Amino acid sequence: MTRALKLHPDRLFPADPTTRAIARTLYAEVADLPIVSPHGHTDPTWFADNANWTDAATLLLSPDHYLYRMLYSQGIDLDALAIPRRDGVPATDPRAAWRVLADHYHLFRGTPSRMWLDHVFAEVFGMRQAFEPATADLYFDAIGEKLATDAFRPRALFDRFRIDFLATTEGAHDSLDAHARIRESGWQGRVVTTYRPDGVIDVEHEQFAGALRRFAELTGEDVYSWQGYLAAHRKRRADFRAAGATATDHGHPTAATANLSTAECEALFARITGDDWTPADAELFRAQMLTEMAAMSVEDGMVMQIHPGSVRNHNAGLFASHGRDKGADIPGRTDYVHALKPLLDRFGTSTDLSIILFTLDESVYARELAPLAGHYPCLKLGPSWWFHDSPEGMRRFREMTTETAGFCNTVGFNDDTRAFLSIPARHDVARRIDCGFLARLVAEHRLEDWEAAELAQELTSGLVRRAYRIDASDAKGVGSCSTICNDIAA
Amino acid sequence: MTRALKLHPDRLFPADPTTRAIARTLYAEVADLPIVSPHGHTDPTWFADNANWTDAATLLLSPDHYLYRMLYSQGIDLDALAIPRRDGVPATDPRAAWRVLADHYHLFRGTPSRMWLDHVFAEVFGMRQAFEPATADLYFDAIGEKLATDAFRPRALFDRFRIDFLATTEGAHDSLDAHARIRESGWQGRVVTTYRPDGVIDVEHEQFAGALRRFAELTGEDVYSWQGYLAAHRKRRADFRAAGATATDHGHPTAATANLSTAECEALFARITGDDWTPADAELFRAQMLTEMAAMSVEDGMVMQIHPGSVRNHNAGLFASHGRDKGADIPGRTDYVHALKPLLDRFGTSTDLSIILFTLDESVYARELAPLAGHYPCLKLGPSWWFHDSPEGMRRFREMTTETAGFCNTVGFNDDTRAFLSIPARHDVARRIDCGFLARLVAEHRLEDWEAAELAQELTSGLVRRAYRIDASDAKGVGSCSTICNDIAA
Amino acid sequence: MTRALKLHPDRLFPADPTTRAIARTLYAEVADLPIVSPHGHTDPTWFADNANWTDAATLLLSPDHYLYRMLYSQGIDLDALAIPRRDGVPATDPRAAWRVLADHYHLFRGTPSRMWLDHVFAEVFGMRQAFEPATADLYFDAIGEKLATDAFRPRALFDRFRIDFLATTEGAHDSLDAHARIRESGWQGRVVTTYRPDGVIDVEHEQFAGALRRFAELTGEDVYSWQGYLAAHRKRRADFRAAGATATDHGHPTAATANLSTAECEALFARITGDDWTPADAELFRAQMLTEMAAMSVEDGMVMQIHPGSVRNHNAGLFASHGRDKGADIPGRTDYVHALKPLLDRFGTSTDLSIILFTLDESVYARELAPLAGHYPCLKLGPSWWFHDSPEGMRRFREMTTETAGFCNTVGFNDDTRAFLSIPARHDVARRIDCGFLARLVAEHRLEDWEAAELAQELTSGLVRRAYRIDASDAKGVGSCSTICNDIAA
Repeated sequence: MTRALKLHPDRLFPADPTTRAIARTLYAEVADLPIVSPHGHTDPTWFADNANWTDAATLLLSPDHYLYRMLYSQGIDLDALAIPRRDGVPATDPRAAWRVLADHYHLFRGTPSRMWLDHVFAEVFGMRQAFEPATADLYFDAIGEKLATDAFRPRALFDRFRIDFLATTEGAHDSLDAHARIRESGWQGRVVTTYRPDGVIDVEHEQFAGALRRFAELTGEDVYSWQGYLAAHRKRRADFRAAGATATDHGHPTAATANLSTAECEALFARITGDDWTPADAELFRAQMLTEMAAMSVEDGMVMQIHPGSVRNHNAGLFASHGRDKGADIPGRTDYVHALKPLLDRFGTSTDLSIILFTLDESVYARELAPLAGHYPCLKLGPSWWFHDSPEGMRRFREMTTETAGFCNTVGFNDDTRAFLSIPARHDVARRIDCGFLARLVAEHRLEDWEAAELAQELTSGLVRRAYRIDASDAKGVGSCSTICNDIAA
Repeated sequence: MTRALKLHPDRLFPADPTTRAIARTLYAEVADLPIVSPHGHTDPTWFADNANWTDAATLLLSPDHYLYRMLYSQGIDLDALAIPRRDGVPATDPRAAWRVLADHYHLFRGTPSRMWLDHVFAEVFGMRQAFEPATADLYFDAIGEKLATDAFRPRALFDRFRIDFLATTEGAHDSLDAHARIRESGWQGRVVTTYRPDGVIDVEHEQFAGALRRFAELTGEDVYSWQGYLAAHRKRRADFRAAGATATDHGHPTAATANLSTAECEALFARITGDDWTPADAELFRAQMLTEMAAMSVEDGMVMQIHPGSVRNHNAGLFASHGRDKGADIPGRTDYVHALKPLLDRFGTSTDLSIILFTLDESVYARELAPLAGHYPCLKLGPSWWFHDSPEGMRRFREMTTETAGFCNTVGFNDDTRAFLSIPARHDVARRIDCGFLARLVAEHRLEDWEAAELAQELTSGLVRRAYRIDASDAKGVGSCSTICNDIAA
Repeated sequence: MTRALKLHPDRLFPADPTTRAIARTLYAEVADLPIVSPHGHTDPTWFADNANWTDAATLLLSPDHYLYRMLYSQGIDLDALAIPRRDGVPATDPRAAWRVLADHYHLFRGTPSRMWLDHVFAEVFGMRQAFEPATADLYFDAIGEKLATDAFRPRALFDRFRIDFLATTEGAHDSLDAHARIRESGWQGRVVTTYRPDGVIDVEHEQFAGALRRFAELTGEDVYSWQGYLAAHRKRRADFRAAGATATDHGHPTAATANLSTAECEALFARITGDDWTPADAELFRAQMLTEMAAMSVEDGMVMQIHPGSVRNHNAGLFASHGRDKGADIPGRTDYVHALKPLLDRFGTSTDLSIILFTLDESVYARELAPLAGHYPCLKLGPSWWFHDSPEGMRRFREMTTETAGFCNTVGFNDDTRAFLSIPARHDVARRIDCGFLARLVAEHRLEDWEAAELAQELTSGLVRRAYRIDASDAKGVGSCSTICNDIAA
């Protein structure tokens, strides 16, 4: 006999009955608001081609590094999960991989992956039995059948999920073909790109040289001269804006910024492109480029996102066998207060610039990020990120940032995912946790109920729309919540 | 129609009914205890002159960097808040500034500033309508009228607030005139000073040279020789003790201490005063001076407070336009375990010395500060400070320090404020949070109710009185809670 | 009139009634499970000789640095606590020391020491009055009388406590005589050793030279040559395994590892043994030895425990007067992500190796340790350690690790104590806190009740048995919870 799969309507709300009742009321008003997803990694070809996905494992398991990092940590070979090797050795077939996931689904107890997957199973696929070894094939078959129907094509799900805005992320050397095809198709879903130039900035990336060549081809600029290189960035930023982008994204090892003279920049760039650089040069170049990107954002109004602090591809053996992005990225200690100063010395008092800061190092929430965002007009706090995109992580984020930075220096939720089907689940978790946090403030008489209700709306909808300038009226300017909240309060 | 302003009697208590009931009982016994404020930044001329304050904005907004840092972060120009520029450009008038605060009061939802201000409005000024754009003028007028009366002069409020002891903070080069006038006036309020010599120790401060000259004038010592400089400190410490001081305060960038030989000190001091110093010299000199101050504290019994870890004036543009202390101080990562070792190697086993440690880096609470204070007789833990002087910050402080350091290695509450009218509000928040924490321990059967009741008294009154040696009998000695608690337990 | 001593049956459970009821149910099923204590510091001669302990102070106070660090922090001389000095100056007699503890027992309110002691008093000795100054002699006498009986000899208590497995810790240069005598005695209690080679690895330890000589004597190897030194480790590891050891333990100042060539190792070892080393050499040698120990663990299947981050003997004055291990160890900031990379580059993908990581720096739980253990098959997370072996510390551990690493990358509880009588108390605290944490997940509908019940069993029994390979069937292999949990789920 198998067990039932049920999503409890009160899930994630605090257990105290008074607080829970308040949370329930707050949540009821935001549960069904449209989804705004300003930062993520879905594949734009899905929406361009609108082809059917093939099967549960290929869609839900193989691309999800949250899942296979846990399985791998318990001694399961990636081959058994249908994760391709660099050498092309064929991995297991999807159904076999799916069974491995079912056999070890208990490993995810207490993790967000479990909540997200159960939500996908119950809400997207209508499953009524729990996922476990005995139902692995039932799930694989049922999901496969649904995925073959029109109702489960990418665009249909986009509409069903009530997604209002979805940003993907492309490199500076990406053709943006998929986005062009989306626009040309006449489909009304708002899927836009984000400018992520790391590939042409990080000389330590193994594919830097090729990316730079492609960058030259796409722009027709002399990307091997400092001025030509900057001009190429300007051109591509314009291309990206034309493809709907409102933001850039920067995933550097650290938050270091620099503010060099033009002569220093030229000398540094000559070393970088001349293959005569040290790791310190590589770091300094990335640092300087954050400041250059800020300068261009002041010009063109694109919002900057900085995602620092991940030590990528930590597992040398796995990198050799399977390549990058296989769940082996590990956060490191990250400094912001000194790192950002060169950039802020130049643009800190600008009210045109908007930079959204993320961290994998929670010790900086209260110590550095909330004080920085609670002071500088150009800085905002991104939501709890990656390993911290979880109920406890979100709760800590609010507890450690709100008292210093308030709610209005935050920017709502990012799902940051390539797992398209989990987007509603992830936004639902964020809404529930935010409502639970607000409910506690109300229960402790630190906030009035009507204030909490307004804030629930802001945290779900208002802040993200303004912070990412996704409505025409927000195209430039500080993107604060002052005006809107005033309107609400009026 | 405007909304009512009400302070809920259960505010800040945990929502669980059992825990809340215990918290209520504990709080009832300490709510009305006199206020002891051993560390703060009120202006002693208020109590010397006892003049009326002029208006709400000048009293409550312009000096409060908690308020204008948040407003500034949302793109509001400091000119609009009546914050003076360096160049004397006239700022807006107070009423206009006050309206800006009212227009953006929603920004403070969830912050301690909101709780403190509402407390001031309701309890000090008797306002019954909420503060919002529609009541800005009503507030400005009502507060202005009250401030013009005798009942709202500084000394009257001091009495009304039932303040038993209030320490201000003056530089080593301050004349202490205001304190002399307080004493000469015959007024019985106990307002004392605190010796803060940073201005004559930190050669990186832009006014160091002038401060040193003034230090020489006030002491008649040759402050440009190492021995004369130390003698000048001894003289001024005696002056400060004569003005009631029981403590010194040290606001260094780091917690670094040093233990150099006399010859090394003389050479270092020659560089510092010869304008031939490096940043490393500046840091080493500050480090050595902490140890020298400890040596003098062993002699004269003054309690040392160390407040490290703030990166001052982080915003270069704002510093250029408006000068220091404009809400642009940002905490940085701070080490204690290695930094304090040189000082502790010399005085660590002394039971005469008492050093109170503060931090802006919460990651050290459980890792460094609680273990240090839970071992060294000369070390105590100051309360959660500045950005962490907040309900969540106080809760984290207790949760992360109590299990290792106990309650008796802490020193009660500091309001650390220049916002005189908010002092009762701040102490009330601390008492409520402490009672809520104790209540949880009782509810979880980790503490007996009578033990919690004793501790509530200690956290409110006993610990601070002994730690700061404010009663004659505590003038020297370890200032522990051992004796008193014994008495209580007996 | 004295007060009653009562252990409340609901102690440490969350106050919310719903959550508490769930916690109670979960706890009822694990409260009486046998104790598995895979890491601790009890004295094996107790079990070898089975002699009676003499008195309360000598058994419960003098060896417990948790107790005397707190007393010392409040100005109490260690002489008054019967702690021996290096120079052999006689300390106070045990009864007088015991009275000092009673006089200051209030200092421990809110600390785990208080909970552990009260548990020992009530459950082991059957005391019914609270411990306080008035009952100090009553306690001393009653405990003394009981300790003189057969029922309170070490082996009798071992059986009464239902200890299934108890690991002590011995140095590489220990004879293991006590363990030999335990085995030869025919007693059935499973008391095993753990291989802790720090004494022959850490050249900065003041007794390194003597330890190395003894290491040579015990092994007959030329421990002054690199290969002979490694061979000596192999021999001793075999000796320890023969004495039941399943694990090694490494208490280094940092988590640094290295991966040097043989030639580099030989040159480094020559400096270390030639007394021509720098502190950097000492650190590099410790780092390399962690990797060597990992290599040997791959060979012989011993589980590695790494306990880094304690700055030992921080108090120079106390070290001079009383020697090491006197409560003056202070945690420091600790990096893992870079530190462990050299070792992981060599063995990271091994599923034979098992390394259990501990920390005193809670900021790494979510940032480094959970991501590392949630990825690498060879890494597991040890429980919250030392200063964090406490209700709040355990709660934070679960909250900050579970969402990324799950439960199955953790290893159950360690009591890590030399206070033998407190072992049941410590395990009871851990079981209660884990059940409280699981209960919250159930109350928030993040876990089903049957899942929580399975996990409570795993956290109490299953994980520790497999992680430490204490059952024959786990002698080698990844020691994951996959198989067992599958069995449970089946």
